[in-house]
Amino acid sequence: MLIPSSVIVVFSLLLVGSYASVQDFCVADLSLPDTPSGFPCKDAKKLSVADFVFSGLGKAGNTSNIIKAAVTPAFTAQFPGVNGLGVSLARLDLAVGGVIPMHTHPGASEVLVVIQGTICAGFISSSANTVYFKTLNKGDIMVFPQGLLHFQINSGKGPALAFVSFSSPVPGLQITDFALFANDLPTELVVATTFLDAAQVKKLKGVLGGTH
Amino acid sequence: MLIPSSVIVVFSLLLVGSYASVQDFCVADLSLPDTPSGFPCKDAKKLSVADFVFSGLGKAGNTSNIIKAAVTPAFTAQFPGVNGLGVSLARLDLAVGGVIPMHTHPGASEVLVVIQGTICAGFISSSANTVYFKTLNKGDIMVFPQGLLHFQINSGKGPALAFVSFSSPVPGLQITDFALFANDLPTELVVATTFLDAAQVKKLKGVLGGTH
Amino acid sequence: MLIPSSVIVVFSLLLVGSYASVQDFCVADLSLPDTPSGFPCKDAKKLSVADFVFSGLGKAGNTSNIIKAAVTPAFTAQFPGVNGLGVSLARLDLAVGGVIPMHTHPGASEVLVVIQGTICAGFISSSANTVYFKTLNKGDIMVFPQGLLHFQINSGKGPALAFVSFSSPVPGLQITDFALFANDLPTELVVATTFLDAAQVKKLKGVLGGTH
Amino acid sequence: MLIPSSVIVVFSLLLVGSYASVQDFCVADLSLPDTPSGFPCKDAKKLSVADFVFSGLGKAGNTSNIIKAAVTPAFTAQFPGVNGLGVSLARLDLAVGGVIPMHTHPGASEVLVVIQGTICAGFISSSANTVYFKTLNKGDIMVFPQGLLHFQINSGKGPALAFVSFSSPVPGLQITDFALFANDLPTELVVATTFLDAAQVKKLKGVLGGTH
Amino acid sequence: MLIPSSVIVVFSLLLVGSYASVQDFCVADLSLPDTPSGFPCKDAKKLSVADFVFSGLGKAGNTSNIIKAAVTPAFTAQFPGVNGLGVSLARLDLAVGGVIPMHTHPGASEVLVVIQGTICAGFISSSANTVYFKTLNKGDIMVFPQGLLHFQINSGKGPALAFVSFSSPVPGLQITDFALFANDLPTELVVATTFLDAAQVKKLKGVLGGTH
Amino acid sequence: MLIPSSVIVVFSLLLVGSYASVQDFCVADLSLPDTPSGFPCKDAKKLSVADFVFSGLGKAGNTSNIIKAAVTPAFTAQFPGVNGLGVSLARLDLAVGGVIPMHTHPGASEVLVVIQGTICAGFISSSANTVYFKTLNKGDIMVFPQGLLHFQINSGKGPALAFVSFSSPVPGLQITDFALFANDLPTELVVATTFLDAAQVKKLKGVLGGTH
Repeated sequence: MLIPSSVIVVFSLLLVGSYASVQDFCVADLSLPDTPSGFPCKDAKKLSVADFVFSGLGKAGNTSNIIKAAVTPAFTAQFPGVNGLGVSLARLDLAVGGVIPMHTHPGASEVLVVIQGTICAGFISSSANTVYFKTLNKGDIMVFPQGLLHFQINSGKGPALAFVSFSSPVPGLQITDFALFANDLPTELVVATTFLDAAQVKKLKGVLGGTH
Repeated sequence: MLIPSSVIVVFSLLLVGSYASVQDFCVADLSLPDTPSGFPCKDAKKLSVADFVFSGLGKAGNTSNIIKAAVTPAFTAQFPGVNGLGVSLARLDLAVGGVIPMHTHPGASEVLVVIQGTICAGFISSSANTVYFKTLNKGDIMVFPQGLLHFQINSGKGPALAFVSFSSPVPGLQITDFALFANDLPTELVVATTFLDAAQVKKLKGVLGGTH
Repeated sequence: MLIPSSVIVVFSLLLVGSYASVQDFCVADLSLPDTPSGFPCKDAKKLSVADFVFSGLGKAGNTSNIIKAAVTPAFTAQFPGVNGLGVSLARLDLAVGGVIPMHTHPGASEVLVVIQGTICAGFISSSANTVYFKTLNKGDIMVFPQGLLHFQINSGKGPALAFVSFSSPVPGLQITDFALFANDLPTELVVATTFLDAAQVKKLKGVLGGTH
Repeated sequence: MLIPSSVIVVFSLLLVGSYASVQDFCVADLSLPDTPSGFPCKDAKKLSVADFVFSGLGKAGNTSNIIKAAVTPAFTAQFPGVNGLGVSLARLDLAVGGVIPMHTHPGASEVLVVIQGTICAGFISSSANTVYFKTLNKGDIMVFPQGLLHFQINSGKGPALAFVSFSSPVPGLQITDFALFANDLPTELVVATTFLDAAQVKKLKGVLGGTH
Repeated sequence: MLIPSSVIVVFSLLLVGSYASVQDFCVADLSLPDTPSGFPCKDAKKLSVADFVFSGLGKAGNTSNIIKAAVTPAFTAQFPGVNGLGVSLARLDLAVGGVIPMHTHPGASEVLVVIQGTICAGFISSSANTVYFKTLNKGDIMVFPQGLLHFQINSGKGPALAFVSFSSPVPGLQITDFALFANDLPTELVVATTFLDAAQVKKLKGVLGGTH
Repeated sequence: MLIPSSVIVVFSLLLVGSYASVQDFCVADLSLPDTPSGFPCKDAKKLSVADFVFSGLGKAGNTSNIIKAAVTPAFTAQFPGVNGLGVSLARLDLAVGGVIPMHTHPGASEVLVVIQGTICAGFISSSANTVYFKTLNKGDIMVFPQGLLHFQINSGKGPALAFVSFSSPVPGLQITDFALFANDLPTELVVATTFLDAAQVKKLKGVLGGTH
């Protein structure tokens, strides 16, 4: 069966204004202002496969710090190719004794997969304050519903590695300690709204760089 | 337990390109063109708490008019802080005998809470044309599903005040009388599409400023 | 102009299977299992206006407690009429010195309107940990973006009253202190994931009823 | 190249629990209660192509009535195959002089395509009350944004036929006249909320079967 | 009843910043970069009814080609009025023997209505690979769920015409043959990922203009 | 500072009807019919951490087959904890020479992360038919936009392992070859809609178990 090239002409009318019609993807142009649905798109004609590939998660994060852990994100800001596509990734490195402190992602649910080591992970439900936590081994996955407080701890004897995926290209990350103690929120407001002792608040503010 | 400030370095990688990564909120830059999801965001680094607070609902609207009522909105256009956040407010002031005429919000559901006075409020379902209306007292709340015709009447002996919240920062407001009689829609088209008498249409066009 | 009742017949075909076609609203049938989009709908033919009105916010909550404050929700569980409609309300009562402690709503943004008194309210952005807080007076409104830590404090000399509206009928409420201290999350896990001193954790667990 | 049937075994693990995994489509089981996202799905194993085809739009609606027009819907209630798929259709038949009266679809935008005849169609924006209307000929299409009042009139000398598609399987249909005059909404409430004369209201209530 | 024009003043506060408040619609400004939710909006004050009407589907597409068929789209790129409104249309012309080859719409579900002739149409479910196909006559409609492979064939003795509507203004169109054979995807990759014989691949690449 | 347990009473009103109020998560009850938004939820009171953890991805899939590859999903059907949460995972095992054939996910975008080995992966845009492919090494990630044809090939000298995450708990999987050749779609329809030679179609039908 012969198909003359005229068939191309027929369908190519769909390509008229092809810049406009491309909504297969929308690689972020980070130089333009963001919108509620994500960044404006780079011109599709200027894209290459490099826009859809990211190598920043290939190297372990630096865990030579007090939490002995590192989070390396591949969100829209780092990986513009996920803009508008409803998904993103991050890499978690936990040295022996490492901890990803209690935190939330205001804009996404998360699924974690353990690649190496042993991780104790958990989350807390809202309203009922029920705690769900478990020790996870290599290949185990765990889901953390959107917006709920959760944590990960290296509970093994060697380093641990995990990848976490999110239901949004901009999941956000609010680490409770940093939100409370690493800024200029007055100590008296922290005390009043958390029931913590002022001495405790001041101690953590000192450590994390908060003022007041 | 001591936490060296190096911990800050670890997490601060999340702040790289922080302009890009901020999708906690998206305060509208009303000087730029709108998009289907809302206005582009103001630069997060230039925001202050003033962008998230609005004082325009603190004063009663002027009810010295024929409907003896006033609607004061805090939608994106008035309160850019709600842009992209899926919620907005408005204030209803109804003098004695005041009426918010039959209207719809094409883009949102509404919940009304009575702060002062007595309000008879109701809506009409589509297809079945069922009417749901009730006299509401202080503290009562009522929900009006998206897009359905509804109204509020001060049915008490003193002024009434209510706040209404919406499931969108741009709920829209289509007052049926204004849609039909306050523009240049030809009288014959109004008559043909509403079954109203031409004299009735012309009378209301005269009152509401419509032409033709 | 005469319109014979036959016109009704014409349109009434739209009412065939009217139970099926009603998606104007979906009042929750709380006796059935929930779904990701909300509860199954009560039969529209059995609804009355009472399903769309809720009087539970008309009375002040009991503030005779340690936080001198009360939250009274009108979410789907309390007010089934908002099910599926993308909006809900709650009432905040704050006695003198009252505080709504640091908390998040995992599933919704919030707008607060001050009805009485003076309230100091604020929220903290994710990643950048920027604090936005301000003293609000009667009629002022403030927006709290989805999932971010925020608080409200009565900063005046008399009682304060506010209504808060949400961009979801099930916003959720996670009070940080209750999530950390009012359950069986082991003290060592709280310490490890929050940097708080064990003594502080145990003290608050004692107060809030947590074990371990 | 030979591909042993063992390849089937490999991928068939994806079929384990195939009832559960099917979310390609969700044909409505109208015998179960609706949900905010649509009806529960019929068992995929019991479906045939007949579930995805509907022949009810193949016949002209009966226009022997006062509006000389008929609307024949293929929404979820009539065509369960569109449940959950974000789109539906309806057929409009307009005899000479026929009119689809002023109405809204609370839950969807609409695109109309003229198949036969000449139709004058228009809509009215909210807030600004701007009227957009035009005479459409065979093959012309027009879009009516969600929730806005609009109408269609046969403005030609022969019968007219159009198909309209919607951005939802349950667009709803609220005909203003039926909402105001074809139910038990008290005349005084109609008068108070529409500025219409009581005599006009009573006249239309008489015609359309409304009481009070 | 007299309604002084002062009533207009009352409501006109809603028009303050009317450019900002208009989200009834968002006609695409194709000269600006796209966003994940669609194109930025043209200034509402510059719109006329022409922005909401499109006449490009009024003429048959050219079917003098090998597939004896033509697709004429009215997506955002061709009809900017549908931008952001969740719906679009296209016209299918099939000469005798005409075929719309196997394809998907990555971003939308589709409903087809046969206007003229006889069309054999079908789709294939994912995972289970179940085929649903049927011969459709004038007035029949069929739904094709989002993202699934489907096709249309003129199975009658005369030309066929259909309109298809989509649940998105940018449904996309991926014709399997063009994706595989009309570009520079290396033959060895096509062979490896489709199990097709290299000779078959090269033959079709030759016909459709593919290289390598 | 002492906090009497009465504070618990205050907030516990939020727990009234706690079954109803839980929308933190919605673990699928696979015994009930699905809905367009996912499965109905299991009773929150009966959940344990086991509902949020899945160990099925911990073991390599069996690659002793013709494609020398295996896909192991953790979608709602296998891992009910992701129901309603907008995210899911799968594991890809590719032996030397292994291939995940050309396929689409009708309901989700995908991000792949290479854990071991070297993978050549690519996708094809719609309309423009542009091919984007690249060889990925350990730690590289690549995004595949929703609904577009894509593939993965082990291009290294040892086995390869990857995890893929999706923007939906029910992404679907349509393998082009299985859709065309592993069912009862008549050969003449395949030929007519793909331009493939009948002999090629019959050969692949034979291999993949298709009839007709």
